[in-house]
Amino acid sequence: MRLTFAQLNFTVGAFEANFERMRQAVQAAERAESDLVVFSELATTGYPPRDLLTHRRFIDGNLETLDRLAALSTGRLGILTGFVDRNPASPGKELFNAAALCRSGRIVARRYKSLLPTYDVFDEDRYFEPARDVAPIELQGVRLGVTICEDVWNDREILPRQLYHRNPVEELVAGGADLLINISASPFSLEKADVRRRLITRDAVAYGRYFFYLNQVGGNDDLIFDGHSIGVAPDGREILRGAEFDEDLITIDVPVGGEATVVPVLRDVTATDEARAYRALVLGLRDYTSKCGFSRVVIGLSGGVDSAVTACLAADALGPDQVLGVAMPARYSSAHSVADAEALARALGIRYEKIPVDPVFQAYLDTLGPALGSSPPGPTEENLQARVRGATLMALSNTLGALLLTTGNKSELAVGYCTLYGDMCGGLAVISDVPKLLVYRLAHYINRDREIIPASTLTKPPSAELRPDQKDTDSLPPYNVLDPIITAYVEQHLDVDEISALGFDRSVVADVIRKIDASEYKRRQAAPGLRISSKAFGVGRRYPIAAKY
Amino acid sequence: MRLTFAQLNFTVGAFEANFERMRQAVQAAERAESDLVVFSELATTGYPPRDLLTHRRFIDGNLETLDRLAALSTGRLGILTGFVDRNPASPGKELFNAAALCRSGRIVARRYKSLLPTYDVFDEDRYFEPARDVAPIELQGVRLGVTICEDVWNDREILPRQLYHRNPVEELVAGGADLLINISASPFSLEKADVRRRLITRDAVAYGRYFFYLNQVGGNDDLIFDGHSIGVAPDGREILRGAEFDEDLITIDVPVGGEATVVPVLRDVTATDEARAYRALVLGLRDYTSKCGFSRVVIGLSGGVDSAVTACLAADALGPDQVLGVAMPARYSSAHSVADAEALARALGIRYEKIPVDPVFQAYLDTLGPALGSSPPGPTEENLQARVRGATLMALSNTLGALLLTTGNKSELAVGYCTLYGDMCGGLAVISDVPKLLVYRLAHYINRDREIIPASTLTKPPSAELRPDQKDTDSLPPYNVLDPIITAYVEQHLDVDEISALGFDRSVVADVIRKIDASEYKRRQAAPGLRISSKAFGVGRRYPIAAKY
Repeated sequence: MRLTFAQLNFTVGAFEANFERMRQAVQAAERAESDLVVFSELATTGYPPRDLLTHRRFIDGNLETLDRLAALSTGRLGILTGFVDRNPASPGKELFNAAALCRSGRIVARRYKSLLPTYDVFDEDRYFEPARDVAPIELQGVRLGVTICEDVWNDREILPRQLYHRNPVEELVAGGADLLINISASPFSLEKADVRRRLITRDAVAYGRYFFYLNQVGGNDDLIFDGHSIGVAPDGREILRGAEFDEDLITIDVPVGGEATVVPVLRDVTATDEARAYRALVLGLRDYTSKCGFSRVVIGLSGGVDSAVTACLAADALGPDQVLGVAMPARYSSAHSVADAEALARALGIRYEKIPVDPVFQAYLDTLGPALGSSPPGPTEENLQARVRGATLMALSNTLGALLLTTGNKSELAVGYCTLYGDMCGGLAVISDVPKLLVYRLAHYINRDREIIPASTLTKPPSAELRPDQKDTDSLPPYNVLDPIITAYVEQHLDVDEISALGFDRSVVADVIRKIDASEYKRRQAAPGLRISSKAFGVGRRYPIAAKY
Repeated sequence: MRLTFAQLNFTVGAFEANFERMRQAVQAAERAESDLVVFSELATTGYPPRDLLTHRRFIDGNLETLDRLAALSTGRLGILTGFVDRNPASPGKELFNAAALCRSGRIVARRYKSLLPTYDVFDEDRYFEPARDVAPIELQGVRLGVTICEDVWNDREILPRQLYHRNPVEELVAGGADLLINISASPFSLEKADVRRRLITRDAVAYGRYFFYLNQVGGNDDLIFDGHSIGVAPDGREILRGAEFDEDLITIDVPVGGEATVVPVLRDVTATDEARAYRALVLGLRDYTSKCGFSRVVIGLSGGVDSAVTACLAADALGPDQVLGVAMPARYSSAHSVADAEALARALGIRYEKIPVDPVFQAYLDTLGPALGSSPPGPTEENLQARVRGATLMALSNTLGALLLTTGNKSELAVGYCTLYGDMCGGLAVISDVPKLLVYRLAHYINRDREIIPASTLTKPPSAELRPDQKDTDSLPPYNVLDPIITAYVEQHLDVDEISALGFDRSVVADVIRKIDASEYKRRQAAPGLRISSKAFGVGRRYPIAAKY
């Protein structure tokens, strides 16, 4: 049986564009004389559609797209795709997260997702009724065991906790499935691809079946889908690997019941965390920008590593011509910070402007003088400088029709070392899920062949330059202490005792946790940030603000 | 049987303070010689705890609170309370949303919530495993049928769709329950109390049982809990009504199986939507402010109705001394707007300052002149003025340690008629769920006895005053057209055809819907807003940004 897996980049709600992408894949599969072309979870709508699912017209648009797709399944080729189906029964949720097999111009089978994730960024139980039972679908005498994404995430050996009472893969095998296919929309995180491969491999071996796992690719808001589809033979050999961070069409012959040899199709893999993070962020940045209708971006360049890495990602994603870097020196800016910003802009080939903002800062001080009183400058004045820069960048964004990118990293956002309506201004927080130490690793990765980010940017101590001789370490522990504490608290949910036991001073740990909890109000108003860890700030982390804990 | 219902105001995670509130209620119930004192859903933690539930120490703190509460149940008095229990079994979610009955110093029964809401603001399936089955709890020979909040929200006649496959109330009655008690944390909306009363009344009559519904009271972030607990006799008579928007301890004698007459305990009800909205917003504002650790607030006073109503709510919630109103005239401000702001401040007795911000705006224009080019002033310059005001208010907030309140209404926020990092600055959006027409009704309600909000504020055409002679109607349909379209789209999920069919011009409807969809990026960075409708912007409305629909 010849299978074509279409690993595509969909835009949520863009029915016509999504259909056109699928139509081209169908034509390619026909040319390849495939028996079946497979599309990913909710391919008709793009994933995640979120509350657009509450609109009748949205569901109709998705069903019309499915009908148009079914009409393409003439001749030998079958089409398997994800879509949203209505649940005609009551009681129960109104919709199913569904898969359809189309043949001879019509839908011949529908199947529903059994396991609906509700952790982290997922809200599927908000919309969907789970499948009551599952059964294979027959195609040319082969019984396909079709599952959808989470249906395969229920392994008691690999996952820390088994959340669900059912195992749809096991049920399908018991029901006679010859071949297993999972259609997915599984968001990227640095460690995710490895877990996915272990899950699929375990099932392929345990059930003695070929198992193909097809993932969506592309950025949708904060989520980055990395593609990286997988196929595993019953003996555990990897026989299919889709491109990472890119669309891919993979055709493979599988000897169901026969003895033929499988010729594996294996795209290259990205070797390091830095390279993976880099590629993921470029994809997420490019897609957020274009799917929001922008072609240009503007970035404040402080001379520091965060804005430098953000500018490099943007130049790669959109082309240097589409990126404007802006240096905004004020009274506490060091001479080298403007020089570093200029050198970066020159090395990258992006557009560059210098706008000294001290006159605006001074106008605020003059205007607010009586109200602020005579106390020495403090956080109020520091925040004002950051806000002058934020409003300056937003004015450029408004005038040029360019998306403003925020440059704050995860470490800052965690402990609130950032100014709301100041450096937090922007439509997308490119590196808000990248801890400071990983920002440095990304910078060295960017500089691996030649110096793009100036060496002095990488060697000088981090500073916000909002008061004389300020250093990040005036307010925070060094990043080699701060970052692991943040990771332990935010990603691993460890408590103060457990984190101290890892070898950190208890009072430092308690202070960092206190800062993280107290900064929730800032994060609630933060721009969406590209997710590359197992727990990013934003949609997947939901804390109260007015709490005392 | 004598029952005491403790309708209390909890703070999320404040275990010690929550316990102390409950301890005092236990003492009062002892003095009243009650058989049982009842506390609301998740009383130990406060509701909603959200992702704090993922912390082991948080669950421990809640269990310790339960143990301390159980230790108070000496003598005749039983204690029934909501708490979080651990689920020792696997597979399944790690926690239960639970109720415990305590007697003689210990926990004698535990019951779990069966129906877990996942719509609107609710994420309960994110944390909790549902009860597998239910059974009454015996107390002094009476079998109590205890359910938790959503367990009663499954009526096929009253609700638009039955979401759940089980009916825990019916199961409890079948299991022999003599008396029904629902412990709840049910957020306020204008029409909610009526639906609750119909649900409880229907069940009391249908099952021929006394049914008591105990609700939490108080504001927690965006959610306002209105108290307003209910008791209904088997003949449908209302026999208990807790205070609205306030704590209450209600003791009532119920003749289980006997013939005695019930003496109803009925607190006053708020008669109109305006009065209900007003009281709800005062409570939400007061609790958000105090639970975040603030006593003072600052508000920008434009002379318009939105900031005037917000200031009145704040003065009522916190006392006029704790409110600073700031007028910030610039070149396009009308003379009457400052006069109206001053008159309001005087009538309310709040603190008042006037800070002319035109010099800062001019400094921006001078600084940005070359970058902005020579085109006539447009949205960039309008936004700059709003941002100068936002940064000015934030400087006062920083200096004074006062929470900045945002004054935008729901109509503006819906169509994006507001400036990100400008008038959207602030920690709490007090009236962001109040459509403009209801803002006017609130203003008239506030002025019912004497003129607090100046008459000219209520009669002049709404304007942002960011360019000469600007009116809201330059950009938007009149509010008597705009508001019903927004309600139809946002709250009732109607589509362009259905809304046009209500009597609105199709192109106007399409334009309003387009504006609503296109403003999602602004709302994602908005301050939390107090929810008074069935669908507020914020936590309960989850849309993608980078979508094309």
